[in-house]
Amino acid sequence: MSRSSGNKILPKISNVKTRKSRPKSRKKDAWPELVPVTRGTSMGDYLRRFWQPVAVAKDVLPGKAIPIRILGEDLTLYRGTSGLPHIVAQRCPHRMTMLHIGWVEDDCIRCRYHGWKFDGMGQCVEMPAEDPSFPPKVKILHYPAIDYGQLIFAYMGEGEPPEFSRKTELDREFGVKWASVQVWPCGWFQRIENSLDAVHTSFVHQDSRFGEKMSTAVPELEFAETEWGIRMIARRSPTNIRINEFHLPNCNHIVVPTQLPGQNRGKTLPWTDLFNWFVPVDDEQTAFFTTRSAPITGAPAEEFESWLETTTRYNPADHHDELFRGEMPAEDVGDTATALVSAQDYIAQLGQGTIVDRSGEWLGKSDEGVILLRNIFRREINAMQKGQPIRIWQQKPGFARLPVPPGVPPSPDRDPVGDTPRP
Amino acid sequence: MSRSSGNKILPKISNVKTRKSRPKSRKKDAWPELVPVTRGTSMGDYLRRFWQPVAVAKDVLPGKAIPIRILGEDLTLYRGTSGLPHIVAQRCPHRMTMLHIGWVEDDCIRCRYHGWKFDGMGQCVEMPAEDPSFPPKVKILHYPAIDYGQLIFAYMGEGEPPEFSRKTELDREFGVKWASVQVWPCGWFQRIENSLDAVHTSFVHQDSRFGEKMSTAVPELEFAETEWGIRMIARRSPTNIRINEFHLPNCNHIVVPTQLPGQNRGKTLPWTDLFNWFVPVDDEQTAFFTTRSAPITGAPAEEFESWLETTTRYNPADHHDELFRGEMPAEDVGDTATALVSAQDYIAQLGQGTIVDRSGEWLGKSDEGVILLRNIFRREINAMQKGQPIRIWQQKPGFARLPVPPGVPPSPDRDPVGDTPRP
Amino acid sequence: MSRSSGNKILPKISNVKTRKSRPKSRKKDAWPELVPVTRGTSMGDYLRRFWQPVAVAKDVLPGKAIPIRILGEDLTLYRGTSGLPHIVAQRCPHRMTMLHIGWVEDDCIRCRYHGWKFDGMGQCVEMPAEDPSFPPKVKILHYPAIDYGQLIFAYMGEGEPPEFSRKTELDREFGVKWASVQVWPCGWFQRIENSLDAVHTSFVHQDSRFGEKMSTAVPELEFAETEWGIRMIARRSPTNIRINEFHLPNCNHIVVPTQLPGQNRGKTLPWTDLFNWFVPVDDEQTAFFTTRSAPITGAPAEEFESWLETTTRYNPADHHDELFRGEMPAEDVGDTATALVSAQDYIAQLGQGTIVDRSGEWLGKSDEGVILLRNIFRREINAMQKGQPIRIWQQKPGFARLPVPPGVPPSPDRDPVGDTPRP
Repeated sequence: MSRSSGNKILPKISNVKTRKSRPKSRKKDAWPELVPVTRGTSMGDYLRRFWQPVAVAKDVLPGKAIPIRILGEDLTLYRGTSGLPHIVAQRCPHRMTMLHIGWVEDDCIRCRYHGWKFDGMGQCVEMPAEDPSFPPKVKILHYPAIDYGQLIFAYMGEGEPPEFSRKTELDREFGVKWASVQVWPCGWFQRIENSLDAVHTSFVHQDSRFGEKMSTAVPELEFAETEWGIRMIARRSPTNIRINEFHLPNCNHIVVPTQLPGQNRGKTLPWTDLFNWFVPVDDEQTAFFTTRSAPITGAPAEEFESWLETTTRYNPADHHDELFRGEMPAEDVGDTATALVSAQDYIAQLGQGTIVDRSGEWLGKSDEGVILLRNIFRREINAMQKGQPIRIWQQKPGFARLPVPPGVPPSPDRDPVGDTPRP
Repeated sequence: MSRSSGNKILPKISNVKTRKSRPKSRKKDAWPELVPVTRGTSMGDYLRRFWQPVAVAKDVLPGKAIPIRILGEDLTLYRGTSGLPHIVAQRCPHRMTMLHIGWVEDDCIRCRYHGWKFDGMGQCVEMPAEDPSFPPKVKILHYPAIDYGQLIFAYMGEGEPPEFSRKTELDREFGVKWASVQVWPCGWFQRIENSLDAVHTSFVHQDSRFGEKMSTAVPELEFAETEWGIRMIARRSPTNIRINEFHLPNCNHIVVPTQLPGQNRGKTLPWTDLFNWFVPVDDEQTAFFTTRSAPITGAPAEEFESWLETTTRYNPADHHDELFRGEMPAEDVGDTATALVSAQDYIAQLGQGTIVDRSGEWLGKSDEGVILLRNIFRREINAMQKGQPIRIWQQKPGFARLPVPPGVPPSPDRDPVGDTPRP
Repeated sequence: MSRSSGNKILPKISNVKTRKSRPKSRKKDAWPELVPVTRGTSMGDYLRRFWQPVAVAKDVLPGKAIPIRILGEDLTLYRGTSGLPHIVAQRCPHRMTMLHIGWVEDDCIRCRYHGWKFDGMGQCVEMPAEDPSFPPKVKILHYPAIDYGQLIFAYMGEGEPPEFSRKTELDREFGVKWASVQVWPCGWFQRIENSLDAVHTSFVHQDSRFGEKMSTAVPELEFAETEWGIRMIARRSPTNIRINEFHLPNCNHIVVPTQLPGQNRGKTLPWTDLFNWFVPVDDEQTAFFTTRSAPITGAPAEEFESWLETTTRYNPADHHDELFRGEMPAEDVGDTATALVSAQDYIAQLGQGTIVDRSGEWLGKSDEGVILLRNIFRREINAMQKGQPIRIWQQKPGFARLPVPPGVPPSPDRDPVGDTPRP
């Protein structure tokens, strides 16, 4: 019933709040170099100095091809019948048809329109209706590609690719490894900023078990530039210390509980290493590649894989409108809160807009990690543009020392003594 | 069967109609000031001189926040736990996340990303991870907001808001009041032009009972500028006279039968007052806020509300493609034709295009109301731009004298004798 | 299971393929005149010199109106109660509402908004609320329109329309005639290029029965400019010779098996003539009008029509994403492969992009037909732009001599002896 109630709330005009003046505009650093990633932009050229994940390995079976878009470039990714991955131009240069709709033959791909065939180096090797002197003259773009950590990586830069940075935790010879990918419709840099932002956990995730675990207390933060990137330490209490190892330019290494649904058994298992790569699809879309390495075996390992099979299918971007209307996914049964936590991150980061307008920000001391991250990118980009050497981010030696709560069993292959605090 | 019939209709070429020349193009007034409504445009600044409805009151419960877009501005509307509505900037100025996904606390709103908290005046009052000296330095945009007539109104202009114009019919202490809103994907001015266009009823609505009631006869029209806007009188016969009171800048007051489904009982009830506000969401979308005030009580009032609950959910914009293919909603059962009438208006006005190209029009004498409306806006905008006083549209005193057909009982609170004809 | 396998495939970096340098960019002819088709562009003006199909005749019943978009122009197409088709401007010039939502009265159309009425020549003949002196002053755009071959054709150029080119096979007095239309979201020229490209059949259609029939052998090609367009001869073997008669500017005449589902009976019937018109809806959409003329009668004719009723509803554009993911329609039952063949053409041509970037092409000798087609358009456009006479494409006299495989019965009305080879 809504009868005759409207005029009850009308205040006297003299009591109405008045906007005396508009907030002053301030001249701020808009960090313009952080966003554009196509070839020829400063960030685009910098990111192309490194191997980048471009697909989940199992999404491209031998003999199959898929179209990919990475760093604003449209490309064809195929896996030869040999199993090797290859990346070539999006289109056949004859009449410009997309190559992924063609046929993979050995380590070559044949265009569906008129049968031109290219090898994995982009060299045309056959034109069925043309003179044999023609194919050697035609070569298309290709990029080196390798399988690693359940992902396919590409080197999209000029010249020889740099040494590939293996991850000790992904090289372990046992346990469960699992890769997945989510694409979100936002710029890539706001995604990595969130990795260096421990405060967000206390608010963004406060309605989830994950949030409870982290406690709602605002942490003390400590940052250090390392040989491989940035170490972030967040102290909430003497027994609640979180460390991330951020591998520059765009991979965050964290540990999380090894979640098993329906019970508290997750608490009895060593934690899982997560490597999260944030790779620009283009300026306005970001691929989030995760490879998990759980140091568990036997029945729990099989159960964990079954759970991953299902849970890694959730992408909050598929529920954008509902999430921004406040319709969040339910806390998952048991100890797991994957969908909810993902959705919480999604609304916080997409809530910043497709691309953050950084010219409007008011940064504070709790943004130290974000500022450090931006400054390192600015420093490296400036060096690159002046033709000076950029910093070569090293492969991190040995296992990372990422503390877990008291009572969690250590990974069987990990030295429990280290140089970072472990409660 | 479609055999061998194609060539039967082919006329001899000598009989084919020939287009001798293209219709001449004429230099016409394109009325460029009517459309853009963002801040800084002439119409945008003019409309910001007045309180504007921005939401249906019951769509924002105490303790809840929603995003709104009005006059091309994205804002956060929330209702404090006190019940008071507040309008602040769309985004937290810390890291630019949208505020509506945060939490309402008393009459404040807290950002979900890092917990910054703002009061209803836009003043930052808390930053959990920052020094207490920081919050007083940060203030965001806010606009005065009030509840009235089941709607929330905002004042989005500079300086002190003007006096709020109450409506006598909405202030009546009894009866049914009901607000609803529809957003249509078209410019706002073609929507108010239709309010001053009585001829359209004879054609747009001729297939509906509403159209029959109005008769298909083209009316004699009379317009007058009043202290509060424009009075339009449309005479179709001595006993068929319609009067609208258009309250400038953008509210149309009409009376319509109090519709009860399934029967003719509507004819035995006093008519309902409708106040229709047309508010630009942006240049290409218009919110149509309607508040009904029906001077009825008891069982018919309850039945009327039940009917409104359902019928006000129909928005022809949800059926755009079907409607333009000619698939109109069925005439409703009984006396009601709400969906059909709404759909008829929709195709006529959306049929003009997202924004009417007024440079192509041929206006006639029947467009007197449209021309008067445009000229008043042009006059007021010109005055505003020259720094001259604009006309202060007055609150209309007393009840409007809007005639109803013979036999319809008068509203119990309305003086049946007035200064405008009543059959 | 995906355990610990990722690092097995990682090659030694020294073995990784290296991209030494980017493929050289070449300065190529981008053929800019081929794409834009709005009035005032060179191609737009050239195509407007000819009658163009704009709708399937049975899609506009007497007394009905539809909106159409052809050559980038939005228009109203209606059929008077007399049965005659008429094409007038999209909008009523009074207040700019689309006319197709109005009412057809005799051979006139009345606007739904205020009842202005126009005849088929675009002359306003009634304005119910205006002085009778007004209508004669208002005339809107109209184009001559005729019914032919189950289609409606329009002449959208200046001055007197040219003589209409009838097709002998569509004028035959018996058999099944059937028109259908598909709109694809790509430029029109890549669609007609495919008509002059016999090699594509060997690859694009190799997975379908149609492809098998054509054989996967690459054909020997022969092209000749004729009085009405281009004749293409493709020889795959002494008994496998295909001829197309391309009628310039945009109609391809081919013969195909008269398909009856579920059996091989199609092989015992004369083949069907297909006239395929490719008409730009606008620069980025193309309508593909097909009229079939099958020289069959009796029960097979009825069965053929039933099959056409269903099969012509398939449009690969409705399945765009699935098709580019590799989810092709199943081979149809029996001899028919219509959906599959259509989908194969779709991915090849849409795979070229919405509009082909011709500046990137490497053309070869097998592109002779494509190059001939482009050069003829360039020649005619150049002549037109210099005010010189363009070539008047003649109506093809008599039946086309399009060979069919051995054993296929000839059409009863067709002279089996001709000037082109017939196996």
